[in-house]
Amino acid sequence: MTNPSLPSLKTRQAVEILNEKGIDLWLTFVRETSHGGDPILPVIYGESSLTWPSALIITRKGKRIAIVGRLEVEAVRATGAYDEIIPHDTGIAAPLRETLVRLDPQQIAVNISRNDVLADGLTWGMYQTLLDILATTPHAFRLVPAEEIIGALNGRKIPVEVGLIRNAVKATAEIFNEVYDHIQPGMTEKQIAGLLHDQVQRRGLEYAWSIENCPIVNAGPASAMGHSGPTDLVLERGQLLHFDFGVKQQGFCSDIQRMLYFLAPGETQPPPEVQRGFDTVIQAIQAAAAAMKPNVLGAEIDGIARAIVTKAGYPEFLHGLGHQLGRHAHDGGGMLGPRWEKYGDLPDRPLEAGQIYTIEPSLFVPGYGVVGVEEDVLLTENGVEYLGEPQTKLILK
Amino acid sequence: MTNPSLPSLKTRQAVEILNEKGIDLWLTFVRETSHGGDPILPVIYGESSLTWPSALIITRKGKRIAIVGRLEVEAVRATGAYDEIIPHDTGIAAPLRETLVRLDPQQIAVNISRNDVLADGLTWGMYQTLLDILATTPHAFRLVPAEEIIGALNGRKIPVEVGLIRNAVKATAEIFNEVYDHIQPGMTEKQIAGLLHDQVQRRGLEYAWSIENCPIVNAGPASAMGHSGPTDLVLERGQLLHFDFGVKQQGFCSDIQRMLYFLAPGETQPPPEVQRGFDTVIQAIQAAAAAMKPNVLGAEIDGIARAIVTKAGYPEFLHGLGHQLGRHAHDGGGMLGPRWEKYGDLPDRPLEAGQIYTIEPSLFVPGYGVVGVEEDVLLTENGVEYLGEPQTKLILK
Repeated sequence: MTNPSLPSLKTRQAVEILNEKGIDLWLTFVRETSHGGDPILPVIYGESSLTWPSALIITRKGKRIAIVGRLEVEAVRATGAYDEIIPHDTGIAAPLRETLVRLDPQQIAVNISRNDVLADGLTWGMYQTLLDILATTPHAFRLVPAEEIIGALNGRKIPVEVGLIRNAVKATAEIFNEVYDHIQPGMTEKQIAGLLHDQVQRRGLEYAWSIENCPIVNAGPASAMGHSGPTDLVLERGQLLHFDFGVKQQGFCSDIQRMLYFLAPGETQPPPEVQRGFDTVIQAIQAAAAAMKPNVLGAEIDGIARAIVTKAGYPEFLHGLGHQLGRHAHDGGGMLGPRWEKYGDLPDRPLEAGQIYTIEPSLFVPGYGVVGVEEDVLLTENGVEYLGEPQTKLILK
Repeated sequence: MTNPSLPSLKTRQAVEILNEKGIDLWLTFVRETSHGGDPILPVIYGESSLTWPSALIITRKGKRIAIVGRLEVEAVRATGAYDEIIPHDTGIAAPLRETLVRLDPQQIAVNISRNDVLADGLTWGMYQTLLDILATTPHAFRLVPAEEIIGALNGRKIPVEVGLIRNAVKATAEIFNEVYDHIQPGMTEKQIAGLLHDQVQRRGLEYAWSIENCPIVNAGPASAMGHSGPTDLVLERGQLLHFDFGVKQQGFCSDIQRMLYFLAPGETQPPPEVQRGFDTVIQAIQAAAAAMKPNVLGAEIDGIARAIVTKAGYPEFLHGLGHQLGRHAHDGGGMLGPRWEKYGDLPDRPLEAGQIYTIEPSLFVPGYGVVGVEEDVLLTENGVEYLGEPQTKLILK
C-alpha cells in the first residue's frame, strides 16, 4: 500500500474543518487551471491541471466528489483524493446542479474573499456561471465565503507539510553556507545572485518566487530596497550585503533573509551604526517570536517588532512583519502585519497552531545599506519553533 | 539601445486595440500574482510578480500607467512597459481613484468574462474591492468587460511572438525525431515518456503543460484517451503509439500530436483499419486548414473536421478541434470548437489574422489504439501556414 497523497490527506482535513466551522459543503469551481487557476487547487487536487469546467466538492459528512471533463477522469482518480468522480461531456451545468440538489447542503462555501488571495480563486466569470447554473434552485441563495475553511486548511500544516518546508529551509541554509565563501568585493549583485542560481540548478531545486528577483541582492547603500532584481552595482568593502532568497523543493518553499558585512581596510569589526542596525533587527525578531502564541492577533506581533525598530530611531518598515509560508512564499491567510488598507482583515486573524510564518523586520543604515533578516517559524501550542538555525550574528567577511 | 521588451510591444499594441474597439481605458487590477494571478499579466507585464494591490492602466490616448507597491517600482520600471509609475505605501484606493478621476474615461474595461479564461483574471474579491474604491465616483458605472481587448491582444501574435512559437514547434519536432529510434516494443508508456523528458531536460526547456501528462502517451487499445499521464502499459507490436506533447521555450509553447505504428510480425504495412483511421484524421486536418480564413467562425471549422470523422463512421471526438496557442498550450480566446455549453461563445468568434491555432481531431481504432494528430498553424490574411512539417504519413516501426 502506498502512502496517501497529500491532496488525499488535506481533503480529509477539510472534512474536519467543515465540521468545526459548521458548513455543509465546500465547492471549488474551476476551468483551464493551467492559466493559474484557483490557488487552493494544489492543496486539494495537486499539481496537474483541470481543463474543462470542473467542480471539487467536499462535504461535512465526508464525501469528496469531483465533477470533471470525461477525458480527465483518470487524472482525478490518480490524485487519490476523490471517492466519487462524475464525468461530463459537453457541459457541467446539469451534473453540478444534480449533485448539489442530491446533497442538499444548507451552506455552499465558495472561494471568494476580499482580503485573502488564497481564498479568492473564484473569478468573476466563474461566479456568474455558477449563479446561472443554480438559478432554478434554492442553492443560489446558500453561497457563503469559504474564507475560513481555506484559511484553516492551508494555514494548519500537517506533519508531512511541516517536514517538507523544513527540508526547503535546510536546503536554503546549505546554499547560503556554500556561497558565502565565494563572494568577493568587486562582484556585482548579478554575479552574486548567479552563485545562488548555480546552487539551485545543481541541486535540481526550483525558486520560491520568480527568478528575476530570487534572490534579491542588496549590495551597499545605493541598492534599492524592495522586490527588484539584482543589478550591476558592485559590492565594495565597508558595505552591507543583504539577501532575500527561497527555494521550492517538492512543492514547498523557504523564505530567508541573511546579512553579511564586508570589513573596510583596517576594520576588525563593523562600524557601531551597522552593528546597532543589525542588533535592532535581531531584537525585533526575537521579541516577535517570543510573543507568538495561538489566538494572539497578527497585528499585535507586528506591533511589537515595529515598535522596537521605531523606538531605536529608524523609520518603520513599509511592509508587514511576516506572512505565512507553505506551497507559496506568500502563502495567504492571516499575517503578521499592521492594520493598513492593503492588508484588509488579515492582521486581525488569530494565530493558530500549525501555521508557519516568516518574521522579517527591516531597516536602512545610511551609508552602509539595507538590513533585513528573515526567519521561518512554526507556531505550536507552546509558542514558536525556528525551522532552521536563526541568524543572530552579522557575518563578517 | 536594447530591443523593446515584449510587454512594451504588447502594451503599445493594446493602445491600438483600444482605439479600434472604442474603449477609453483598460484596467488590470491584481495582487499577490505569484499565486497564479491574472492570466493576461505575462503579456502586459512579464513574468515577475506583483505583491501588493496593483493597477496596470492603458488608455486609448496611449498612456501606460502602473500603480504598485513602493517596493516594486524598480521591478515595474525594468519591464519597460509603463511610462508613469505611481507608488503606494499602505493602500491603493486613493491613488487608483485619483488616477481614474484624472483620466476620466467613459469606459473602464476590466478583466471579466464568462467564457474566456484569459480575459477573466479579476477575482470576485478584487472586483468587490474595485467597486468599493470607485463607490464615490461615477466610474463604478463605467465598468465594461475587457474581453474583446484581451481576445484581440493575446490572439493577434506580433512577429516576435510568432517567431518564438515557431522555435518551440521546431524544438518539439527535433525531440520527436530524436526519440523515435529509441522506442522499442516492450517499453512502458512511462519509459517512453521518459525518453522525451530526457530530451526536454537536456535542452533546458520547460513543459507546455504539467509534466504529469506531458507527454500524454497512448500505447495500444487499452490506454485511456484523454488528459491522463503515461502508465505501466507495455507497448506491443501490432499497436498504435500516440503522443501529445509540447514544450515551452522562452515563454512560448508548442502543442503537437504524432502517430506511430509498430508492425506486427509478418506485417509490412499497417492493417487497413489503422491506415483508414490515420488517413481520416489527416483528411480532417487538411480540410479544416484549407477552410481557415479571417472572419470565418471557429464553429464552422470544427464542423468541417468533425463531419469528416463522423461520416467515415467514427464517433465524434469529445473535445474541440483546436485552440489558440501562445504563452499557454491553451491560450484562451476564440477556438475551433462545437457549440457545446462548456465552450460558451468561444466557437462563435471570428478568426483573425495573426492567431495561432492547433488542429487536432481524434478517433479510436478498436484493437489498435488512439489516433490523434495535432498541427500548429498560423492564420494569415491568405489562409493558414503550418508552423512545422505536418505529419501526413503514419510512422512505421
